[in-house]
Amino acid sequence: MPQDKHTNRRLLLASRPHGAPTEANFRLESQHVPEPAAGQVLLRTVWLSLDPYMRGRMSDAPSYVPPVAINEVMCGGTVSVVERSEHADFAAGDWVLGYSGWQDFALSNGEELVKLSGPVLKHPSWALGMLGMPGFTAYMGLLDIGNPQAGETVVVAAATGAVGSLVGQIAKLKGCHVVGIAGGAEKCRYAEEVLGFDRCLDHRDDNLAEQLSRHCADGIDVYFESVGGKVFNAVLPLMNTKGRIPVCGLIADYNSTGERSGPDRLPQLQSAILRKRLRVQGFIITQDYGHRFEEFFTQMSKWVAEGRLVFREDIIDGLDNAPEAFIGMLEGKNFGKVVVRVAGDKPS
Amino acid sequence: MPQDKHTNRRLLLASRPHGAPTEANFRLESQHVPEPAAGQVLLRTVWLSLDPYMRGRMSDAPSYVPPVAINEVMCGGTVSVVERSEHADFAAGDWVLGYSGWQDFALSNGEELVKLSGPVLKHPSWALGMLGMPGFTAYMGLLDIGNPQAGETVVVAAATGAVGSLVGQIAKLKGCHVVGIAGGAEKCRYAEEVLGFDRCLDHRDDNLAEQLSRHCADGIDVYFESVGGKVFNAVLPLMNTKGRIPVCGLIADYNSTGERSGPDRLPQLQSAILRKRLRVQGFIITQDYGHRFEEFFTQMSKWVAEGRLVFREDIIDGLDNAPEAFIGMLEGKNFGKVVVRVAGDKPS
Repeated sequence: MPQDKHTNRRLLLASRPHGAPTEANFRLESQHVPEPAAGQVLLRTVWLSLDPYMRGRMSDAPSYVPPVAINEVMCGGTVSVVERSEHADFAAGDWVLGYSGWQDFALSNGEELVKLSGPVLKHPSWALGMLGMPGFTAYMGLLDIGNPQAGETVVVAAATGAVGSLVGQIAKLKGCHVVGIAGGAEKCRYAEEVLGFDRCLDHRDDNLAEQLSRHCADGIDVYFESVGGKVFNAVLPLMNTKGRIPVCGLIADYNSTGERSGPDRLPQLQSAILRKRLRVQGFIITQDYGHRFEEFFTQMSKWVAEGRLVFREDIIDGLDNAPEAFIGMLEGKNFGKVVVRVAGDKPS
Repeated sequence: MPQDKHTNRRLLLASRPHGAPTEANFRLESQHVPEPAAGQVLLRTVWLSLDPYMRGRMSDAPSYVPPVAINEVMCGGTVSVVERSEHADFAAGDWVLGYSGWQDFALSNGEELVKLSGPVLKHPSWALGMLGMPGFTAYMGLLDIGNPQAGETVVVAAATGAVGSLVGQIAKLKGCHVVGIAGGAEKCRYAEEVLGFDRCLDHRDDNLAEQLSRHCADGIDVYFESVGGKVFNAVLPLMNTKGRIPVCGLIADYNSTGERSGPDRLPQLQSAILRKRLRVQGFIITQDYGHRFEEFFTQMSKWVAEGRLVFREDIIDGLDNAPEAFIGMLEGKNFGKVVVRVAGDKPS
């Protein structure tokens, strides 16, 4: 069902998932397109970003931001076109990065909007990827917390995903030995042949720990954690003294429910942190590094312009396919950054 | 059995402990006092430090330093008097901080020795405590990794121990709200009444978590970890966003063997690190901060001279009592920094 200029399709959170989300947790409804009041703009969504953090917002467990309420529109970053403006700073036809969520149209008072201009307009969805939140996460987590030095070994999970693919490529630009971990032979081949990683291992292989040990012959200096789960078990024994572990996500655990059965791996981690003097640090990109966006954007745009970075998008057509795509992403079915093409890429 | 100038009593590692060490893991033997060769000094031990890290050296698990070999003298920091010198930089009667280990006499080529001078000579055992490795650990771990700000809440385990007692007092000097955790009512009273902590809780109480929550009404900004075990379970849920956890030891786990039964607490820690953007960082004082000893020593000596720090020693008389004291220390039986008075405190 294509976008229609009189109807606002909205995907609401219908119920909270217990474990993995299902399509029943979402409900599609339509309403009339709202009218902008004075000081507001009406935005039409062109691109919607799907990101793992959204799983957290579906639950009402304590988190760093409040959850999405039941019967509220699912949250999400969007690239939109201004349809009508009653706001002095915006004109119809402007492209903006915003947070309209999973819907066709939204009103905004302009506060959270960033007007897109320059090279990103050639490829507006990159504002949700390489030049947006995932790129910013990769850049700051790797460089500020990971602090990789030339010749060091960097391991990155979810190696072909939005964040992981950039972590590995930036680490290569810094002269590191880069080993990725991904799900399936095709992704691994892509990481090595297209992204230029030194090696990419399949986490589905039984002997992941043994392979990782072989391909990280000098140990691991930086592990960029976005996955959690069993990959961490393989990584921890290989961490070098003074190793760094930036933690930006734990996608493997997002769907888990309640207590995990043993063995208890906590003492093992504590012991490794002590003996190897590791630094393990979580971060939330906008909250910890919001003030450094400019620095990231300038450097990253330069690398993009020089053709030094590859960024693969997994494009889903149509808002109504967002729930299925989101559920698949949490299972690792995506290949690249998941973006939903809600409407045509060109201004209408 | 007192020290005798012709005999060198040595406590050897007889066997590796499985779990908690027993006296059978040590063996006392005597030999003639060795003769210093050219370039060497003969040291007579006056004070021997007993520290939790020694438990790690008794095992042959991989660690940041090699283990003590079977039938080798147990390692340990010592304050000694130079008995004879064939070394240009040392004279008989000099007091030195060194690493003679658990024995009456030792030869040294002078490389690792620090000559004691100034105020510490009034209380030479402090070179093994407040002005030595434990003080240095407390100072750097708290100030460099913990980075406490006035008004923040600092929680410290093993609150009356060598490191913990100083962590809490330094945090008070920095204007923090300090809550200690110790074993038993007597230690808790001491932490509050003598060390000046705002509160000290007994980890043996069933409702530790509930008490901790009550006395850390604004959450915990810095947890100085030296214990591990169940205290950590009570602390983690109370950690504030951007909290810091310096890890200098895990005494509760040193005697444990093999895998721990579930539940698996690792995902919970990972999740807290991510959601609260915690920084958890291990350190080994000499290796990470050796270059900043001067800074520590100057500041700490100033505080000591101003009478702003209290330091309690748990003095054990006689080298032959070292094994029992060491075993007791791992069980929390000590009250203050454990030092063994191997010989009289005055130069002979």
